Amino acid sequence: MREACRIEAEGLAYAERIFNTVRDMSKDGPGVTRQGYGPVESRVLDYLEGLGRELDLEIEKDPAGNVWMTLPGADRTLPAFVAGSHADSVPEGGNFDGLAGIVAALTVLWWMRRTNFTPKRDVRALLLRCEESSFFGKAYVGSLGMMGRLTEADLQLKHRTTGETLEAAMRSQGVDPSALVTGRPVVDTLKIAAFVELHIEQGPMLDRDPEVRTAVVTGIRGNIRHKRVVCRGETAHSGALDRIYRHDAVMATARLLSRMEDRWTEWNEAGKDLVFTTGVLTTAPTAAISVIPGETAFTIDMRSLSTEVLEDFHALLLEEAKRIEAERGVRFEFDNALRTAPAVVDAALSDRLVESARHAGVPAMRLASGAGHDTAVLANAGIPVAMIFIANQNGSHNPHEAMKLEDFMAGTAVLWNTIKRFDE
Amino acid sequence: MREACRIEAEGLAYAERIFNTVRDMSKDGPGVTRQGYGPVESRVLDYLEGLGRELDLEIEKDPAGNVWMTLPGADRTLPAFVAGSHADSVPEGGNFDGLAGIVAALTVLWWMRRTNFTPKRDVRALLLRCEESSFFGKAYVGSLGMMGRLTEADLQLKHRTTGETLEAAMRSQGVDPSALVTGRPVVDTLKIAAFVELHIEQGPMLDRDPEVRTAVVTGIRGNIRHKRVVCRGETAHSGALDRIYRHDAVMATARLLSRMEDRWTEWNEAGKDLVFTTGVLTTAPTAAISVIPGETAFTIDMRSLSTEVLEDFHALLLEEAKRIEAERGVRFEFDNALRTAPAVVDAALSDRLVESARHAGVPAMRLASGAGHDTAVLANAGIPVAMIFIANQNGSHNPHEAMKLEDFMAGTAVLWNTIKRFDE
Repeated sequence: MREACRIEAEGLAYAERIFNTVRDMSKDGPGVTRQGYGPVESRVLDYLEGLGRELDLEIEKDPAGNVWMTLPGADRTLPAFVAGSHADSVPEGGNFDGLAGIVAALTVLWWMRRTNFTPKRDVRALLLRCEESSFFGKAYVGSLGMMGRLTEADLQLKHRTTGETLEAAMRSQGVDPSALVTGRPVVDTLKIAAFVELHIEQGPMLDRDPEVRTAVVTGIRGNIRHKRVVCRGETAHSGALDRIYRHDAVMATARLLSRMEDRWTEWNEAGKDLVFTTGVLTTAPTAAISVIPGETAFTIDMRSLSTEVLEDFHALLLEEAKRIEAERGVRFEFDNALRTAPAVVDAALSDRLVESARHAGVPAMRLASGAGHDTAVLANAGIPVAMIFIANQNGSHNPHEAMKLEDFMAGTAVLWNTIKRFDE
Repeated sequence: MREACRIEAEGLAYAERIFNTVRDMSKDGPGVTRQGYGPVESRVLDYLEGLGRELDLEIEKDPAGNVWMTLPGADRTLPAFVAGSHADSVPEGGNFDGLAGIVAALTVLWWMRRTNFTPKRDVRALLLRCEESSFFGKAYVGSLGMMGRLTEADLQLKHRTTGETLEAAMRSQGVDPSALVTGRPVVDTLKIAAFVELHIEQGPMLDRDPEVRTAVVTGIRGNIRHKRVVCRGETAHSGALDRIYRHDAVMATARLLSRMEDRWTEWNEAGKDLVFTTGVLTTAPTAAISVIPGETAFTIDMRSLSTEVLEDFHALLLEEAKRIEAERGVRFEFDNALRTAPAVVDAALSDRLVESARHAGVPAMRLASGAGHDTAVLANAGIPVAMIFIANQNGSHNPHEAMKLEDFMAGTAVLWNTIKRFDE
């Protein structure tokens, strides 16, 4: 077996044991639950620190409670190569969303020790906390905190069932958040040469390909969202009012969505990266089969790698809504648009991943990330970042999320080869 | 003042007193509540019978509890001219839906006594019970019972809040329903020469016309309904799955509705009577802004004066759904179609109404009835029927339903002139 591939065969048992142990620690019905800044997440981090000690790594926690485990390089003045992901999960979620990136980094460090490999620069595993928004309604808390980018309002967000504030949860796990809201990073970002996050894809693109099960991410889509758009028409008896006199909120909404889908198709065909989703759509609680609907409420989520595409498509949405208002005598009320900027991955680092995949004999494609990741927070702090996606089954954020260990190990081999070749 | 118009001026106070008294008897918050086969409906009927006794009318109840009040004609062997409507209302409804047709008939009888008019044939006011479906989920109970067309299952329907069965409610008001489920009418339908129901329009067509406030109904639209159509697609992350791989239930539903609206427009432009409504549309309870929707559920209500148009448009709906299934990899599941046949009004009787309107100097248009009425039940029992619509405000089935007494009296004048001229 070529050296570049050996980690895949020999590291599998090491990784599998970690996945199984963490699953057992966080089992919740058919899935797992590891609330960010909750006791299960803390116990999982303690367990993983223990593995770091076994590998004789230097272990520290940053002020946001994220765990850094360092294998010292030959020249400790150089900025480090960092790999990792988040330890938390959604309620009754899957075991691999987040954890895979941590286990990949640990497995690489284990392999480095096993093969007595001393890197030129420090290689560090970063175990982030509270990436998921499910419990407190705020995503990327650990990485944003690390960049000093939390707000006082964030800290007062309440747990969706217990009502405990995020701040109280953090303090209960020994984290003092006062330094996390200053706008200044609490870690030295200049000491990070590169950050690579391995993550399950969460979509079906890789899993439908029998050969290419790994991807190098081309960017992380930003989004513009409306949590609530209301279309107001006019109710009337469904039998007694003819078409031309109607102000039917369902028909107006259907027309808006169909037209936007037509434009979306054209934009895709013109090569523009864009997805457009109305995930929630409902008529009013008083709606009835024999009443022309006077109201719909719906969500809008548009994502793209390009800020320009997002803004242009959003403008088109508002224009089209105006046109339908004029045509049909209805009114669309948009709540404030919420914007998340796309994150740009580092082209050179991504090229290194592609090259390392080729070197390791792992077939890899290029793929955009539709979901957000901590990586975007690090990218927006000026750190060169890249991501490795691996095929998984049944999406994510549900207990049926699955991943094949051989796919995971192929992605880990790409990470290992990238680290190994980073200073060659 | 011409004789044909005098009833309008002189009958107004009589009618107004009845409307006000019945409103006071059935007041419920901002509206009125007169549940079919409930104590308020019974008390209202008792009060109206008292008015009949003041006019020295012959009063009887049929086995369904409907009240008949007869002003004897010169030749009592002739089948009668019958006018009336229903006494009940929806919960917190308006005062005029149903009651207007009863008051019109009573006002005409009052006018006949006042002017010492003896008709050639009996003229009878028919006060029907329980037309609204709001409480027991079954419409036209009084008229269907009269035609022997209730079913045992109907009698076991439960009151939407108390759980009392329809049968128990009927018995509590002194009605034994056993004769109402035999399939044979409990009244002699051959003794009815004509039935005319005056009713508020419930739609805005007359009220938007400053001149023509009265209509003669061209027919009562039948309908084909689906209480629940489900579109099944496939959920996925809204950012991670590109357009061409999606099975988006909202987009599929929006497309189906937009295409059906396009065809509907074409059919209307080709002169076909048709309305098409999706009154209720919802995504699944688990839907979320960042999840491609895997399910919608919606209602379909299509109405037309023509059975053929209904069946053809329904076939088109199923075809279009199949096409979208093939295009998008979604599935539409239609529950059983519920069909109500259109009711044909008697052309000669309707022409008499139009002619009488002209005679009375009341401007009248021809208008289809989108809502169902007891009149349809009588029509389908072979009785020559017609309807007079009068302008009203704010639709119906809500406490804001309104009607101008002068519009009501113009419609009543048409009824009076029709009866007066019926045997000329």
